Amino acid sequence: MVSLGPGDARHLTPRAREALEQAEVIVGYKTYVDLIGSLVEGKDVRASGMRREIARCREAVSAALDGRRVALVSSGDAGIYGMAGLVFDVCRAQGVRVKTWDGAETSEEGCLSVEVVPGVAAFNAAAALLGAPLMHDFAAVSLSDHLTPWELIEKRLDAAGAADFVIAVYNPRSKSRPDLLEKARRILMRHRSPETPVGVVQKAMREGQRCRITTLGGLNPEDVDMQTVLLVGNSRTYVWEGRMVTPRGYLDKYAGDV
Amino acid sequence: MVSLGPGDARHLTPRAREALEQAEVIVGYKTYVDLIGSLVEGKDVRASGMRREIARCREAVSAALDGRRVALVSSGDAGIYGMAGLVFDVCRAQGVRVKTWDGAETSEEGCLSVEVVPGVAAFNAAAALLGAPLMHDFAAVSLSDHLTPWELIEKRLDAAGAADFVIAVYNPRSKSRPDLLEKARRILMRHRSPETPVGVVQKAMREGQRCRITTLGGLNPEDVDMQTVLLVGNSRTYVWEGRMVTPRGYLDKYAGDV
Repeated sequence: MVSLGPGDARHLTPRAREALEQAEVIVGYKTYVDLIGSLVEGKDVRASGMRREIARCREAVSAALDGRRVALVSSGDAGIYGMAGLVFDVCRAQGVRVKTWDGAETSEEGCLSVEVVPGVAAFNAAAALLGAPLMHDFAAVSLSDHLTPWELIEKRLDAAGAADFVIAVYNPRSKSRPDLLEKARRILMRHRSPETPVGVVQKAMREGQRCRITTLGGLNPEDVDMQTVLLVGNSRTYVWEGRMVTPRGYLDKYAGDV
Repeated sequence: MVSLGPGDARHLTPRAREALEQAEVIVGYKTYVDLIGSLVEGKDVRASGMRREIARCREAVSAALDGRRVALVSSGDAGIYGMAGLVFDVCRAQGVRVKTWDGAETSEEGCLSVEVVPGVAAFNAAAALLGAPLMHDFAAVSLSDHLTPWELIEKRLDAAGAADFVIAVYNPRSKSRPDLLEKARRILMRHRSPETPVGVVQKAMREGQRCRITTLGGLNPEDVDMQTVLLVGNSRTYVWEGRMVTPRGYLDKYAGDV
């Protein structure tokens, strides 16, 4: 399971690059496989579309059981809302055992060598572009109710809002559920001022990047698409020189030192 | 502000490496500067110890105002409990303006070109070693009460526990506050079964790495030190083949597809 990072090759780790080079088979979502086109030329590339997650995992597991070296790729970090978990789910359901990758395939029948290669997650990239919004405790919440009941998503937003976490909102909008972001915004407004800074980052560190800072009160869900990550500040987050910054509190305690 | 990732050079991004190579002055916490010793040989390296965060930022800002290229380094991601925010805090307090780095220093008096280079954060690395614990909504909470009132930390733990977030616990223990982790564990036990998996990862992806999986009920704070990241599962997290996995729910909905 290989993390591609945000897209720009300058943020692809050496280990991820090496794992792609070592692989014979590349499995992934079409948009992300396209991002690494030049790195996987000539390989057995199996790209598929949205909602094909289980099929991709099955394909990757099946090719690996055939003795081939497989890279199942995820954008950002494969371990954060990525594909790593589903691979384990599928192996477990199929009775395929796993061992830790040590540079060699296992010779045991029905057992795979697996490695999760970490990467720069979407919200790490978004935060770097915005300034330093994730300096203090934060929560990540996906608004996708495809696999999670909306009631649980609401509960998490409400809890994270009430406890003053900075909040990274994933999957803030989809065609089939255009109203969820507005619902989420109203929940957060129970706890945060309308002036709370909100970073809106699309396609962080890849072609088509857009990055801007608005407020919770001013956020227009129409300006947000599926590929956006939102970072909602906590009660202390400030905007200065076009940057969004959440202080940890050093200057409250040691103002005299600056 | 340059993110060093977990420590192993295979997880240092090309942009971070390049930024270190371009820098004339390297400023950072001694332990982390030592990790990149070979990359910064011959440079003006200014390493300092714990609790010297403000001094490091002042030194970095001052050197940059003198026209030198400076890399202020953080382990993991500089944007997550790292140094990026404090640099902005210090610039703002000192009346130093900032512009976005475009490959050239600014010629404006009292204005710095700054870039936050993202990286693989400590919990990304820990999660990759453990399996796939961060597949669903999660919260990061630091137990350090040095700058944050303990009451607020308790409130965040309680909220994250109640709303069934996976929880990454940073700074779980220190010499001066040996009892905080036990207090935190009791708060989480209000909401989670004692059987809840807990990943305990020390020095992820660098020398001295230790990685194990225990339970909330079985967690012994004595086994945890300052350099540990804990990942506490949600109510669905399972342990299988020595891996800790939080399912997103694909197999609940599409079990027939596996």
